[in-house]
Amino acid sequence: MDTLNVELGTRSYPILIDAGLIGRPDVFRQHLPARDVLVVSDTTVAPLYLPALTASLGPRRSVEVILPDGEAHKTLANAARVLDVLIANRFGRDCALIALGGGVVGDLTGFAAACYQRGVAFAQVPTTLLAQVDSAVGGKTAVNHPGGKNLIGAFHQPVLVVTDTRTLATLPARELRAGLAEVIKYGLICDAALFGWLEAHLDELLAGAPAALAHVIRRSCEIKAAIVGRDEREVGERALLNLGHTFGHALESATGYKEWLHGEAVGAGLAMAAAMSRECGLMTADEAARVRALLERAGLPTRIVAVTPAAVREHMGVDKKVLGGRLRLVLLRGIGDAFLTADYPAPALARTLAAHCR
Amino acid sequence: MDTLNVELGTRSYPILIDAGLIGRPDVFRQHLPARDVLVVSDTTVAPLYLPALTASLGPRRSVEVILPDGEAHKTLANAARVLDVLIANRFGRDCALIALGGGVVGDLTGFAAACYQRGVAFAQVPTTLLAQVDSAVGGKTAVNHPGGKNLIGAFHQPVLVVTDTRTLATLPARELRAGLAEVIKYGLICDAALFGWLEAHLDELLAGAPAALAHVIRRSCEIKAAIVGRDEREVGERALLNLGHTFGHALESATGYKEWLHGEAVGAGLAMAAAMSRECGLMTADEAARVRALLERAGLPTRIVAVTPAAVREHMGVDKKVLGGRLRLVLLRGIGDAFLTADYPAPALARTLAAHCR
Repeated sequence: MDTLNVELGTRSYPILIDAGLIGRPDVFRQHLPARDVLVVSDTTVAPLYLPALTASLGPRRSVEVILPDGEAHKTLANAARVLDVLIANRFGRDCALIALGGGVVGDLTGFAAACYQRGVAFAQVPTTLLAQVDSAVGGKTAVNHPGGKNLIGAFHQPVLVVTDTRTLATLPARELRAGLAEVIKYGLICDAALFGWLEAHLDELLAGAPAALAHVIRRSCEIKAAIVGRDEREVGERALLNLGHTFGHALESATGYKEWLHGEAVGAGLAMAAAMSRECGLMTADEAARVRALLERAGLPTRIVAVTPAAVREHMGVDKKVLGGRLRLVLLRGIGDAFLTADYPAPALARTLAAHCR
Repeated sequence: MDTLNVELGTRSYPILIDAGLIGRPDVFRQHLPARDVLVVSDTTVAPLYLPALTASLGPRRSVEVILPDGEAHKTLANAARVLDVLIANRFGRDCALIALGGGVVGDLTGFAAACYQRGVAFAQVPTTLLAQVDSAVGGKTAVNHPGGKNLIGAFHQPVLVVTDTRTLATLPARELRAGLAEVIKYGLICDAALFGWLEAHLDELLAGAPAALAHVIRRSCEIKAAIVGRDEREVGERALLNLGHTFGHALESATGYKEWLHGEAVGAGLAMAAAMSRECGLMTADEAARVRALLERAGLPTRIVAVTPAAVREHMGVDKKVLGGRLRLVLLRGIGDAFLTADYPAPALARTLAAHCR
């Protein structure tokens, strides 16, 4: 078992990575002592992994909430449903929630845990590549609002992340590709070597090779844990993890959270961030072409149909990085070198949107 | 102007206390620089003080949400309404919320501020004695659930508390008495001198004498600020501030938040906590009688009609101090000496409930 720690003082926690962890009672016995647990999952994941997880939880009181699958269900109403179940079962402040699923289940469960009795423990058991490399780590919890992605939420760290890499064997190819967008993102932000590794090993990843997947999960978690450890509340550096996300979130909310997987929208957002960085003269044409080529090889969308540039720009205006009425963006000086800036020419953004959306 | 600080490192903030502060633009200019502000108030307070507050806010963008008055409206649905308005107006992470009202408005506004974009600034402008001495200070935010009081919430500190003591001139007598319950609570927890002062000066307080009111506001805030500074997240000592509240919250939720003011329920809860402490042999009969006498002189209920002992006990079971399935209670070793314990005879609790409820 591979173990990484997210170092946050009294809020530190381990990320455990291995094949078959969901079926190991010792893992949950050791790291999650709560007597009462509420497992939140969705209609896709629960039939696959909930029985094994429940068996591993042993003889405690375990209650389940199964949500419909998909980003459109990451709503305040569904978080309220989780809270209703906690209260109906008279769970105390010493209970724990467990999120078994992808980013939607993880974000929503974490937000419910943050709000219940002003904060109770929760564990992430991510079952998609995207959640394993990104959303399950770092304590950003949220639900969506029709007006904008993740606008209602809390910083609330899990007490444990259990990444069972065997779950990737059942992950649909579309979901695997979506997860790769976040891995490519880490390379672009701060790790040119990872980006180069991805260029060399993408076919193995797309074929689901366990060793290759374990490598990118481990490296992604290392990068994210280090950044979160230095800037838990996104006062500075953590904003870099939003590379591609300002574009991506706007696509998701403009389409009612119904058409794009989050990782797909991030993939398109990375293409736009690279193109705009090139447009602003920050990045070479060669590097921008490498970004685009890797995203295309990964099967990620790099062009948007059926959303107008104006609609995307409108939805970008509610991004959490707006400051003093000015939208800040994460751009690239090169592969492995991202930075946050409000200092870009508005026409460059307009041209980027016009070139990618129609 | 009297200024106290709540010392919480980077989350420290001032409590400003004086007559007429709502009408002073310099106070808000200096302490609340946000360009966009959302003021939340209720149908009772807004007609009295919102115009003066808005004038003091100067030439910024100011939006208002006016909620119906009363504990029954401290709901997740109304917090969601505040969030909807923030998003509809495209407020950024650098906005601020202002709670103008009593504890209901303050708790709900603080919770909305905690959840919006994972946390934005908010200021408390408490207009009831209860909010000025207690709920506006310390960063406990929450909404009620039909199943239990304050079960959905967050720890989220305000950036500023503006206590305009002139607002007490318009406070109904019933609300003034409710606020006194929390002041009596502070004396009982840790300040026998304050309790004695209240015995000597209660008539002045009930008559609304400004100097007497200013004294108890100041002293209450001092006590609360010190305890919160030592134990922000209620790992230990802060639980003492819940003296009387486990009983009180159960009364409120058992009656659908419609019949009791929070302070009235706390008053009845203090009477029960003292009686139970006497029942357990912790407190002398003389001291228990002094507690009861002061509560009665303050016009607070010390006996409950139309709620059965069984109903109160049932609702106490969802209290946030339940640990390992066991209800912990704050009891008294004497006036000025409260402690938290799970070690009490269950029959003593049953006898206390039977003696006070019918």
